[in-house]
Amino acid sequence: MTAYIFEFIGTGMLLLLGNGIVANAVLKGTKGSDSGWVGISLAWGIAVFVGVFISADVSGAHLNPAVTLGLASAGKFAWSLVPGYMLAQLLGAMTGTTLVWLTYKKQYDATEEQDALRATFCTSPAIRNPLWNFVSEAIGTFALVFGVFYIAGGTFSEKPISLGSLDALPVALLVMGIGFSLGGPTGYAINPARDLGPRIMHTLLPLKGKGSSDWGYAWIPILGPLAGGFLAALAFLWIGS
Amino acid sequence: MTAYIFEFIGTGMLLLLGNGIVANAVLKGTKGSDSGWVGISLAWGIAVFVGVFISADVSGAHLNPAVTLGLASAGKFAWSLVPGYMLAQLLGAMTGTTLVWLTYKKQYDATEEQDALRATFCTSPAIRNPLWNFVSEAIGTFALVFGVFYIAGGTFSEKPISLGSLDALPVALLVMGIGFSLGGPTGYAINPARDLGPRIMHTLLPLKGKGSSDWGYAWIPILGPLAGGFLAALAFLWIGS
Amino acid sequence: MTAYIFEFIGTGMLLLLGNGIVANAVLKGTKGSDSGWVGISLAWGIAVFVGVFISADVSGAHLNPAVTLGLASAGKFAWSLVPGYMLAQLLGAMTGTTLVWLTYKKQYDATEEQDALRATFCTSPAIRNPLWNFVSEAIGTFALVFGVFYIAGGTFSEKPISLGSLDALPVALLVMGIGFSLGGPTGYAINPARDLGPRIMHTLLPLKGKGSSDWGYAWIPILGPLAGGFLAALAFLWIGS
Amino acid sequence: MTAYIFEFIGTGMLLLLGNGIVANAVLKGTKGSDSGWVGISLAWGIAVFVGVFISADVSGAHLNPAVTLGLASAGKFAWSLVPGYMLAQLLGAMTGTTLVWLTYKKQYDATEEQDALRATFCTSPAIRNPLWNFVSEAIGTFALVFGVFYIAGGTFSEKPISLGSLDALPVALLVMGIGFSLGGPTGYAINPARDLGPRIMHTLLPLKGKGSSDWGYAWIPILGPLAGGFLAALAFLWIGS
Repeated sequence: MTAYIFEFIGTGMLLLLGNGIVANAVLKGTKGSDSGWVGISLAWGIAVFVGVFISADVSGAHLNPAVTLGLASAGKFAWSLVPGYMLAQLLGAMTGTTLVWLTYKKQYDATEEQDALRATFCTSPAIRNPLWNFVSEAIGTFALVFGVFYIAGGTFSEKPISLGSLDALPVALLVMGIGFSLGGPTGYAINPARDLGPRIMHTLLPLKGKGSSDWGYAWIPILGPLAGGFLAALAFLWIGS
Repeated sequence: MTAYIFEFIGTGMLLLLGNGIVANAVLKGTKGSDSGWVGISLAWGIAVFVGVFISADVSGAHLNPAVTLGLASAGKFAWSLVPGYMLAQLLGAMTGTTLVWLTYKKQYDATEEQDALRATFCTSPAIRNPLWNFVSEAIGTFALVFGVFYIAGGTFSEKPISLGSLDALPVALLVMGIGFSLGGPTGYAINPARDLGPRIMHTLLPLKGKGSSDWGYAWIPILGPLAGGFLAALAFLWIGS
Repeated sequence: MTAYIFEFIGTGMLLLLGNGIVANAVLKGTKGSDSGWVGISLAWGIAVFVGVFISADVSGAHLNPAVTLGLASAGKFAWSLVPGYMLAQLLGAMTGTTLVWLTYKKQYDATEEQDALRATFCTSPAIRNPLWNFVSEAIGTFALVFGVFYIAGGTFSEKPISLGSLDALPVALLVMGIGFSLGGPTGYAINPARDLGPRIMHTLLPLKGKGSSDWGYAWIPILGPLAGGFLAALAFLWIGS
Repeated sequence: MTAYIFEFIGTGMLLLLGNGIVANAVLKGTKGSDSGWVGISLAWGIAVFVGVFISADVSGAHLNPAVTLGLASAGKFAWSLVPGYMLAQLLGAMTGTTLVWLTYKKQYDATEEQDALRATFCTSPAIRNPLWNFVSEAIGTFALVFGVFYIAGGTFSEKPISLGSLDALPVALLVMGIGFSLGGPTGYAINPARDLGPRIMHTLLPLKGKGSSDWGYAWIPILGPLAGGFLAALAFLWIGS
């Protein structure tokens, strides 16, 4: 149960510090409207650092259903814990993004552009194309989960794999790099909870003049990352054994 | 007494390197006028690193009355030391910001915009609204102090908590992330000494053509952070016990 | 054989995260078109971190024929392994850049500027001049390989030299610094595999409306880095013995 | 003698990676002309990291006459070594900046603006005022040397103080912070060798259409830093004993 709580806390911090930079960059009436892609990539990486550092020594700091699926698929995490981890991650993401909404309440009120409002919750593609958006998310998440295997587990370990607090910096730099380099086409969900939880909140919260939550796109940042995480597990098993 | 001195030094370095970037970004006749929010967030985080690194092994590097209050509220810091720590932090902040003024003396002389002059001392909201500005400061400081508990103390430690020099990097990244992501509405005081000390100096120093010190706003970056720090202590006690 | 595989993997990650930022910055229809030189320098440095961190404990993380040549020239790496290392690096670079192409497939389709398309694969000089472009690449690579000797091997070690995962951060910062500071004239290949592998893929892949692969320039980012790596070995032997 | 060689090497790397970013940012015909103050501050910090990391375990990595003077004044470094250290630093700075010139040779040829040419060698004030420029340099260097005492020596050590390679990151972050925050008025020489060595080379090298080397200003980035370093030694002695 404690592990679930820390997955919740870690994913909450991840979304608070992650979606916060998007709010700062795209909403009206903020001080950080010039943050740009450099600010977004740096801050999401730092958000990963904080979330992982705080939760790692208790829960192993997955904070991401694609990581949980990848580790379980490779036999490095108990399947019985998977549903609880994923639920905790989803609830954490919903909570973290709600705190962003409270922090930027007056800015949300002042913003009329529907795409900007939704961008502070969930991702959308720069060029909409289901196949290639899926591919982008899968490759980005493959890089993440494949990296996590070698960061967390040593190269040929046979024991269960989990992240410790000392792994927070490498994983954060990995996500920072994925943001800078692979985030261009879809805004790099690379994490089903990071996209779905906030998308649910976009639907639920009383945002003035909000538009569609774009549920038609929602399956891509869920299935693309899960596919990438699963492929990373296959690659790890093939290489490492 | 030594601990008080190092709280003074650490908070002095924090404000020197922290308010320095604001001076560089907003005053006239500087070389860093293009620093933007990326520069401000990075530099304030680095300022935290330096302040914490230098003072941590002596004083535990609170450098912030909201941290001091949070740790004391959770039973992790002696209440008898609280007044001295907070006074040292306030005096340190006043000294550090005065050194910024001396460093940028000719730039202060060249700047006529009153808001820019005041911004190099203390914070002001992007959209003025006492309730929500308070909420923004409280959430930002909650993230800081909640993070400090787990960075400094281990998850379930029963001993007093203080930061060591090895905690400087995680805490600095945490503040860097808060700046990027939660600083947009109010400029993230998240530290009563960081705002009050320089605001006092704005009132006292002979700045040419300075305007109001905006004392009407001063209570928010004091009480908001203290509330956030106290709530973080409650959350830590609730989760960690 | 395992070492070759990890050279392949490490160089693949290097190019995936390295050329990805260039694609994000210069192709049409991306979210990171404002990344600029700051984003490019930061992200390439992070790409080095990830590639080295993952591969170092198995292969020593050369990821670069100029590093391999430099270490072998100094008697710190077996010549018999050199051809296999270099081939693995070349194949890794070809694979990594192909993954960038798949990630940004719709953006490649949307981009008509031939120079932008080629820039996401291989380097080109800001001012074309064979002699001085060669000098720029040689000096940049000299800084890299000279630094690697002292980062990886200790100052006066007599044992073989290879990078470990703890060396990933110093080497990444070194490449980040070279990018910021020495990358201006030629876009800092500083690695024959990083330039040649993607240039081959630029020729092979079915890019719409691609122009020349600029093979006339290709020898400079091969021979310049090799010369720089060799000179670094000479300098190391002269100083360190 | 070995210590002198590594002071030379470390300061050479510092100037190569430090003045390189300035060349990239201000000369014509480079790829990094958008680097701005964020790029300059980050890259100079990284340059410090590389220079210190490579030289620290041999020479203690002063790389700066103000550091050498400060440590000697506090009784933490032998006065007999001071002249050799300072000379090595000056020669290293001259060599490093010459390598920048070779790297950017065609860009130097293409640049006609005399201020830009000189800026890639030595510093100049944003607002010229001898007294306050001196104060800015002294405060910036005070922050540096004061920080070095506590980073390198532990708080109350009685032994000689020198930097080790593990101190490279804290010192680099300190200089990064000084650049961001205190570099606005004068371009932060904070190091007499960093300014004087390249100013000599500006006078000696055959730059097309170069203007004055501004020797009238040269004393400020020499005496200001030395004063700051000496004051830091006094403060350290007063606090630490």
